[in-house]
Amino acid sequence: MTDVLINGLPGDAASEMAISPLDRGLAYGDGVFRTLAVSGGKPEFWPQHMAKLAADCAALGIPAPDAALLAADAQALLRGSGQAVLKIIVTRGVGGRGYKPPDAPTPTRIVMRAPWPAYTPEMATDGVALRLCETRLGLQPRLAGVKHLNRLEQVLARGEWTDPAIAEGLMLDSDGRVIEGVMSNLFVVKDGEVTTPDLTRCGVAGITRGLLLESARIADLTLSELRGADELFLTNSLIGLWPVRQFDGTAFEIGPVTRRWAAALAKLREKSRDEFPA
Amino acid sequence: MTDVLINGLPGDAASEMAISPLDRGLAYGDGVFRTLAVSGGKPEFWPQHMAKLAADCAALGIPAPDAALLAADAQALLRGSGQAVLKIIVTRGVGGRGYKPPDAPTPTRIVMRAPWPAYTPEMATDGVALRLCETRLGLQPRLAGVKHLNRLEQVLARGEWTDPAIAEGLMLDSDGRVIEGVMSNLFVVKDGEVTTPDLTRCGVAGITRGLLLESARIADLTLSELRGADELFLTNSLIGLWPVRQFDGTAFEIGPVTRRWAAALAKLREKSRDEFPA
Repeated sequence: MTDVLINGLPGDAASEMAISPLDRGLAYGDGVFRTLAVSGGKPEFWPQHMAKLAADCAALGIPAPDAALLAADAQALLRGSGQAVLKIIVTRGVGGRGYKPPDAPTPTRIVMRAPWPAYTPEMATDGVALRLCETRLGLQPRLAGVKHLNRLEQVLARGEWTDPAIAEGLMLDSDGRVIEGVMSNLFVVKDGEVTTPDLTRCGVAGITRGLLLESARIADLTLSELRGADELFLTNSLIGLWPVRQFDGTAFEIGPVTRRWAAALAKLREKSRDEFPA
Repeated sequence: MTDVLINGLPGDAASEMAISPLDRGLAYGDGVFRTLAVSGGKPEFWPQHMAKLAADCAALGIPAPDAALLAADAQALLRGSGQAVLKIIVTRGVGGRGYKPPDAPTPTRIVMRAPWPAYTPEMATDGVALRLCETRLGLQPRLAGVKHLNRLEQVLARGEWTDPAIAEGLMLDSDGRVIEGVMSNLFVVKDGEVTTPDLTRCGVAGITRGLLLESARIADLTLSELRGADELFLTNSLIGLWPVRQFDGTAFEIGPVTRRWAAALAKLREKSRDEFPA
């Protein structure tokens, strides 16, 4: 079984792995991506991921591929698979040399199945250690929130530590505001109120964050507010929700709000698998 | 004759065009690139480009490919060609899912020959029109100066106009400082003194700018200083030097300093072709 479909085609062994060296996704990071959790052969939160993919493509002026094509790709790759990761990349396609986007781009769509990462169940139940990254996020309102392929800031930040006991790094923006984890969004609980950072200047607005937004407030957040929080937790499509038990020398309890939200999210994840077009 | 070598191999028609969809250059823009002018089959400023490629790889922690391998690739692609563009991409290579850079990466090296762009000789002799871009450059000191593959800011900026009479766009940083052109570096002449913007917070430090630095001062620059300049010009490896004759409604003379620098650069370019290892 193939692990990759490029524009829907596995082809033979050579073309299966073939992306043109002229693809603007490679040349400029000119594209977007999605990472979906797959359980029992079904991706979670499919409609939300498709909506976000379309919105991110629109933000870059890339025609979004038909969700039905992506669903067919995913079905082909996930047949018979259990727990896995589904990654979708959409680029502006092959273009000539030069930054100017083509008037009528032919996007490249890549759908890949990857093994489930080596996360332990204890990371969700007992919490994880979070460190403060030195690499900061530059302010770019035109790209803020979008999960695009320009991810060198995350690569540099993730390259700052190798200690396997540290699960995630916290990133500030260039003005020192608390923004997000390297691969996750952040929520802060204080006096029963749940806050997640404003992502209109930089950061990636994940779909798990989006699911939880109706019960949280969005605000700018300082490091001292973070350290003074009652509870902290991280979210993304794969981890779901990880409580933070330690941040940069400060210990945190896994409190009642975190436990309640984790339970609610787990239910949503399970239910969401039925929404994948079978 | 092939137009592309990937890790030195043209292979057959399929593998010639094959980049793995798992390459971190595609996934995260995790790599760097160079664009060289080729004349009479020889790239200009080869030693400077190799030095800058090595420095940019080092900035990202990517092992730089041996310059002798790249020279052999270039020789193979440029045999019998006249004026052309040589593009070199080096990525951190294939990696697993996730931002964490592999401990021992196997970089991907791509060398491509492309047609010379449709620049007219008048752009160098009579100057070009420059517009002010709305898209601004985010501040990222850890990546400033490096010609990496995260170029969405340039793609968005270049997408702001379609008028072919406008050759280039000027980009400010998020704090409003004048930084560079979308695809070029900027020099400002005032009272005989030549200034180019400081690129320690953002921007790409091109090798043509580097060649001219010993006669220029580096400083922060405001838009009003730019508008009040006596002369303006742009540089990169392909255009060489373009005088600016009009910026956003303000007309500029092509003055004596610009003419002197253009002549000096033209001589350097010609001489530099002898430094390519034949």
